Amino acid sequence: MTTFMDVHHGMKGITSDELSAAHRADLEIEAEEGVHFERAWADPEAGVVYCLSEAPSADAVQRVHERTGHPASEIHPVPLSV
Amino acid sequence: MTTFMDVHHGMKGITSDELSAAHRADLEIEAEEGVHFERAWADPEAGVVYCLSEAPSADAVQRVHERTGHPASEIHPVPLSV
Repeated sequence: MTTFMDVHHGMKGITSDELSAAHRADLEIEAEEGVHFERAWADPEAGVVYCLSEAPSADAVQRVHERTGHPASEIHPVPLSV
Repeated sequence: MTTFMDVHHGMKGITSDELSAAHRADLEIEAEEGVHFERAWADPEAGVVYCLSEAPSADAVQRVHERTGHPASEIHPVPLSV
């Protein structure tokens, strides 16, 4: 398992409820792809969302996000952290 | 206080020791700017580093990063999180 940070652009105006609903949708199916989404942060003004996950691959992260209707713009493995 | 996610580009090849040293340098002076850096994640291959902080402003975050020699490329307030 690797830690990933994925980034969604084009999310201007996202609300707290929308972020929660999107995260909940990911959590509902993530196990099918062996992924766990830990946290997500949103900047509604710039329209950027960051998601932190543990996953077997970037493709697995993207499959969850695609199936729940919000594909990521970028997915970065982040093997280093403090 | 607001939560911020800041992003550093151009960090290709960053090592675990370098990430730790940079984070430690930020922690040493952050109180002078009222900032607290909570976590950081690095993708050495793409050269991207993400830092999560609590701070009074984006300028305060940048002042710490500039004083420690690694100014951020982007600083996003992330008032929404899950």
